[in-house]
Amino acid sequence: MSDQRTPFGIKALDNMISGGLLAGSANLLEGAPGTGKTTLAMQFIYNGITQFREPGLIITFEEFPQQYYHDAMQFGWDFKKLETEGTLKIIFSDPQTALDELGKMDGQFVTIIEEMGIKRVAIDSITHFESLTSDPYELREIERKFINSLKRENVTSVLLRENDTLLGSVSHVTSKIPFIVDTYMLMRYVEIDSAIAKALCILKMRGSEHQKDIRCFNITSSGIDVEAKFSGREGIMSGITHSTPQDAFVNVFGKKK
Amino acid sequence: MSDQRTPFGIKALDNMISGGLLAGSANLLEGAPGTGKTTLAMQFIYNGITQFREPGLIITFEEFPQQYYHDAMQFGWDFKKLETEGTLKIIFSDPQTALDELGKMDGQFVTIIEEMGIKRVAIDSITHFESLTSDPYELREIERKFINSLKRENVTSVLLRENDTLLGSVSHVTSKIPFIVDTYMLMRYVEIDSAIAKALCILKMRGSEHQKDIRCFNITSSGIDVEAKFSGREGIMSGITHSTPQDAFVNVFGKKK
Amino acid sequence: MSDQRTPFGIKALDNMISGGLLAGSANLLEGAPGTGKTTLAMQFIYNGITQFREPGLIITFEEFPQQYYHDAMQFGWDFKKLETEGTLKIIFSDPQTALDELGKMDGQFVTIIEEMGIKRVAIDSITHFESLTSDPYELREIERKFINSLKRENVTSVLLRENDTLLGSVSHVTSKIPFIVDTYMLMRYVEIDSAIAKALCILKMRGSEHQKDIRCFNITSSGIDVEAKFSGREGIMSGITHSTPQDAFVNVFGKKK
Amino acid sequence: MSDQRTPFGIKALDNMISGGLLAGSANLLEGAPGTGKTTLAMQFIYNGITQFREPGLIITFEEFPQQYYHDAMQFGWDFKKLETEGTLKIIFSDPQTALDELGKMDGQFVTIIEEMGIKRVAIDSITHFESLTSDPYELREIERKFINSLKRENVTSVLLRENDTLLGSVSHVTSKIPFIVDTYMLMRYVEIDSAIAKALCILKMRGSEHQKDIRCFNITSSGIDVEAKFSGREGIMSGITHSTPQDAFVNVFGKKK
Amino acid sequence: MSDQRTPFGIKALDNMISGGLLAGSANLLEGAPGTGKTTLAMQFIYNGITQFREPGLIITFEEFPQQYYHDAMQFGWDFKKLETEGTLKIIFSDPQTALDELGKMDGQFVTIIEEMGIKRVAIDSITHFESLTSDPYELREIERKFINSLKRENVTSVLLRENDTLLGSVSHVTSKIPFIVDTYMLMRYVEIDSAIAKALCILKMRGSEHQKDIRCFNITSSGIDVEAKFSGREGIMSGITHSTPQDAFVNVFGKKK
Amino acid sequence: MSDQRTPFGIKALDNMISGGLLAGSANLLEGAPGTGKTTLAMQFIYNGITQFREPGLIITFEEFPQQYYHDAMQFGWDFKKLETEGTLKIIFSDPQTALDELGKMDGQFVTIIEEMGIKRVAIDSITHFESLTSDPYELREIERKFINSLKRENVTSVLLRENDTLLGSVSHVTSKIPFIVDTYMLMRYVEIDSAIAKALCILKMRGSEHQKDIRCFNITSSGIDVEAKFSGREGIMSGITHSTPQDAFVNVFGKKK
Repeated sequence: MSDQRTPFGIKALDNMISGGLLAGSANLLEGAPGTGKTTLAMQFIYNGITQFREPGLIITFEEFPQQYYHDAMQFGWDFKKLETEGTLKIIFSDPQTALDELGKMDGQFVTIIEEMGIKRVAIDSITHFESLTSDPYELREIERKFINSLKRENVTSVLLRENDTLLGSVSHVTSKIPFIVDTYMLMRYVEIDSAIAKALCILKMRGSEHQKDIRCFNITSSGIDVEAKFSGREGIMSGITHSTPQDAFVNVFGKKK
Repeated sequence: MSDQRTPFGIKALDNMISGGLLAGSANLLEGAPGTGKTTLAMQFIYNGITQFREPGLIITFEEFPQQYYHDAMQFGWDFKKLETEGTLKIIFSDPQTALDELGKMDGQFVTIIEEMGIKRVAIDSITHFESLTSDPYELREIERKFINSLKRENVTSVLLRENDTLLGSVSHVTSKIPFIVDTYMLMRYVEIDSAIAKALCILKMRGSEHQKDIRCFNITSSGIDVEAKFSGREGIMSGITHSTPQDAFVNVFGKKK
Repeated sequence: MSDQRTPFGIKALDNMISGGLLAGSANLLEGAPGTGKTTLAMQFIYNGITQFREPGLIITFEEFPQQYYHDAMQFGWDFKKLETEGTLKIIFSDPQTALDELGKMDGQFVTIIEEMGIKRVAIDSITHFESLTSDPYELREIERKFINSLKRENVTSVLLRENDTLLGSVSHVTSKIPFIVDTYMLMRYVEIDSAIAKALCILKMRGSEHQKDIRCFNITSSGIDVEAKFSGREGIMSGITHSTPQDAFVNVFGKKK
Repeated sequence: MSDQRTPFGIKALDNMISGGLLAGSANLLEGAPGTGKTTLAMQFIYNGITQFREPGLIITFEEFPQQYYHDAMQFGWDFKKLETEGTLKIIFSDPQTALDELGKMDGQFVTIIEEMGIKRVAIDSITHFESLTSDPYELREIERKFINSLKRENVTSVLLRENDTLLGSVSHVTSKIPFIVDTYMLMRYVEIDSAIAKALCILKMRGSEHQKDIRCFNITSSGIDVEAKFSGREGIMSGITHSTPQDAFVNVFGKKK
Repeated sequence: MSDQRTPFGIKALDNMISGGLLAGSANLLEGAPGTGKTTLAMQFIYNGITQFREPGLIITFEEFPQQYYHDAMQFGWDFKKLETEGTLKIIFSDPQTALDELGKMDGQFVTIIEEMGIKRVAIDSITHFESLTSDPYELREIERKFINSLKRENVTSVLLRENDTLLGSVSHVTSKIPFIVDTYMLMRYVEIDSAIAKALCILKMRGSEHQKDIRCFNITSSGIDVEAKFSGREGIMSGITHSTPQDAFVNVFGKKK
Repeated sequence: MSDQRTPFGIKALDNMISGGLLAGSANLLEGAPGTGKTTLAMQFIYNGITQFREPGLIITFEEFPQQYYHDAMQFGWDFKKLETEGTLKIIFSDPQTALDELGKMDGQFVTIIEEMGIKRVAIDSITHFESLTSDPYELREIERKFINSLKRENVTSVLLRENDTLLGSVSHVTSKIPFIVDTYMLMRYVEIDSAIAKALCILKMRGSEHQKDIRCFNITSSGIDVEAKFSGREGIMSGITHSTPQDAFVNVFGKKK
């Protein structure tokens, strides 16, 4: 892990993290279904290749590469072409194989990383490691070992993790991974004015300054778009916000002069 | 999964999802008892046949076809006649059989789909797969396999799922299916002014823009009717809303001019 | 199940359900201890016999018939006399026997239903089926089979179910029965102004329009009396209501003119 | 169970229950530690003997008779003297013995009840039956059998039950007994103005009208003293009340004229 | 247990309990880590010896006597000297030994109590009995037996118990001990104005009048100092208080005249 | 444990604890992922060496020493150099080894402590002891034994512990360690104005006065910076604060004069 930056290529987001993720770091991206984890990971990989000339690898434990080609193309990202050009590789695998092949020096994944000069890796999703053991301490060991393998290869990784919290409070971490990774980023739903908005915040970023704002974001036709923080609202992390009393008063009576 | 649309034939709802479900997609419809899941699924199938000339299949794990004939007829939908005409098929089955028969190329269900030219499938309900295993990882595999079979046949499916939340907060997903499907739609009860209203929102729609509003809806004599979003209310997804302070002030003092 | 109505003979309640329960339907009546489930069931049976000439059957798994004679007499309903006249039958049984005897064509209960021309059945309470198995899927099968037997006999049934929620939020269904039955009716306690009121609402009614109001009701000397909905109160289904801000302002400052 | 009344001899409380408990009924008295369950039971027994000439029996599963002599004497009730006079009996026993001896016609407890002409029985506490089995259905059978034995002897019983709720919401019943008994009475703590008050309410009373108020009560030097209901407070059953907005406004601005 | 009082020697606290604990009673003192349970117990023992000439015994299951000498000395209480003078004994033991040695007439602890004329005993902490069994009924028997042994020796005991509630609501008792003991005293943390205050209240005191106030207290250089109750605050027992609306209005607008 | 102080070298923090931790004490530092536990521990060790000439030892169960060199260097602390100079030692170990080697007089760790004259020890993290046993009583024994070993060596220790609470209420202690240690310090996240702030408070400090404020803190380029307490906010320990009504009124209407 060096102090060099690995930007997402999303300006507002990179600004929040002092320019980008730290090169060589392992970064957790956690969110409920549909919050846009995979989209953000694809954008990280795509921009890495096209804007920063960093070849990328996506290891997936559930969807076939075809799904990624299709989904990426929605945003105008031609993953198939990148694969043909040799700057992107999408591998459908399973947790045990991934752990083994990344663990040994001459493993298949290690070979790919080294031969292609991979700099960015996305894992979709680290949640699947939970199927390997029901012992939380053994799971932590497995996750630690996997992250160490990624770090040894000196790639900057984005580890997706499924979070079961839909609109409730993100009151507790439901795994020990947040303690192990370098960055912990949360994406969640928030109810505002009878609609569902999306919020993003960075809770932890080891070895770097970062903004603490809870930001609104949207998934647009060109990918994730990070906006300003929420205003006049309390309890965003509880999922169901309410107006601040100030905001309510001002809305009705007007602001004092 | 293509970018072609498969409309519900419910204007306000189709508008929320940019014209319709994506052709070939697997779409989860989750709700508490009585929220209208089956009605919406029947309407999707009925309108598919009568408005869009897409033959439909309903696979049910609990109710006999007679119950569907009866319930559909309440809304003026003559399912018996459609079955006679060969554009609708209602099959009473069990989860294991459904999984097997959809899984093999020459399975009974596959044959029906191909011979009838089925384009839309409703599963009532995917909840019953939970009786096949108590291992959450195995269940996920089963559900994934089932969904892949549906996608292989290129049908647009609506998967109903029973949600135990009655009027409490939909704080957590209670299954991993929301992470697997293309669309995640929630139907729920909401208490407003000492009455029980119904709300619908689309949390996830892979590969498509969609509206994020939490909409009020009713079950009328002609089926599901989707209305405007709620106004002057906070905490809709908690099930028990409260007036916004603004709304309360205005209600009593009038709006400032 | 036809579209014919089976009224409770309680005007305000029958109005809520478009005239009455659907003939041949299975209807769940759930409530905390003391909310009046048994009283409402007895009233359904009594009015059926005396106002609508429909013979009735009560199957009980806990109380002896004597308890029903006594309790019914509090409301002026002479159950003993009705039994003598042959229009009412109260059977003390156990869940397994009830399941078996209703399940076979020449079973004891089936014979009674057919010989007496029973049109209405009350089960006090379906909760006792939970003692037959600890497997939720097997329980669902048992309940489904029992309900199917009732439907085969074409009787309109009221299935009582004990709900453990005392004054907390009815946040979740605690059984799968609400998904199986045609009607789901909830009776609950509500704290208002340092007193305990009773509320009733109909969450689900398959194949029929119904009112969505949460209604106040009382147990009077002549049985259940359903009143208006609650006003100026929020959070009724949470059990512990609070005044709406509007109501509070108006109470103190008076309504704006 | 007849319609005859068995008063507590506490005027305000008897008024709440139309004059007294129903003769021959089984009545549950549930409360947190220190709320005064035992005091109310002793008062029921003492007043029965001294005011209504009904001999009383206390069956205890934890405390020795000496503790009752001592505690009763705090309120001026001379239990030792009543035992000598033959109108009171305090038996230290265990749940299994109590169940057996009350269950058989020539059992020790039955003999005592019949020889002494016992009319009132207090059980301190029915909670101890929970040590007999971990199966909730078997427990229900045991409790039912015990209550039936009491009813067969035609005594009016007060069954104490320990409730673990200290200051939280009494959101759920934690046992099936409330569904079995004739009366369900709750005693609880309530925080008001940085002090702990006591509240009592009657949730269920089979075969009788009863007041629904949540009443404040105190333990004075002469026993339980039931007072008015709480005013200007919401959420009493949640244990931690808050002022109603009305009350707060009036307190500060005065009532509108 | 007599009506004689055993004062803490803390005036404000003794006033709350009509002069002191009842001689011979068993008194539970429950609190979160750091609330001052041990300090209050040491003060009870110290003042007993120095102000009321009642020799004291501390039985500890975790800390060595040296820790008590050190901690007591912070408050100016010279425990080592008292031990030398023969008015204090601190024993490091384990729950099983304590149970056995107090249980038999010629046990080591009984001998000490009788030879030294011990009048006050502190147990630090009764929580450790939970390591003896995982069966809650057996645990209750053990605790009961232990308490009976203390009562047989006619000592006034203070039983410390660890409460896991840090700042949440003390919603439930987490053990059956509160039902067994004579006095139940709670010490807890409360958040007020971005600081952590300490609160104390007496929920139960068998055989004696006691104040119901929730009092603020501090640990000063001379021990526990009990102050007035909290004002202008609601929800103290929930751990996180909020201003009463009255208080908020008055704070801003001033009190009406 | 003496009364001598072991300062953090962070002025605002040392002021809160009367000058520093007590020499020889065992101090628990608990927090969610990313709150800065390790940073504070490194600062404690670094300042100990450079400002107070007290050699330090870091025992880590997860990260390699390289990670500490890197992370410390972010704050300008050259750990590698200190190791070379012989005033710092970072050991990567496992819980069982640490327990054994600290437990015996001639153990490896004991030797290091004595030879280097170690005065400060940081354990990162004590959470890992939970992998040694699933029995809470055995775990308590292990932790107690480990802490006793540290105390025997007369070092001042900072024991890090992972707290799973992210933004929910720190309602309960999730381990028995807080009852065993001398100091219990909590670091947590707090949502304020759509951003995530950090709060610190000291709940327990045995044998010393300490401030009870809940303080805001930041991680700056020179380490932990402790600031003032929060103002105009309630519910800080619930993680999701809200404005006090006072603050809201004043914000809109201005303060009364």
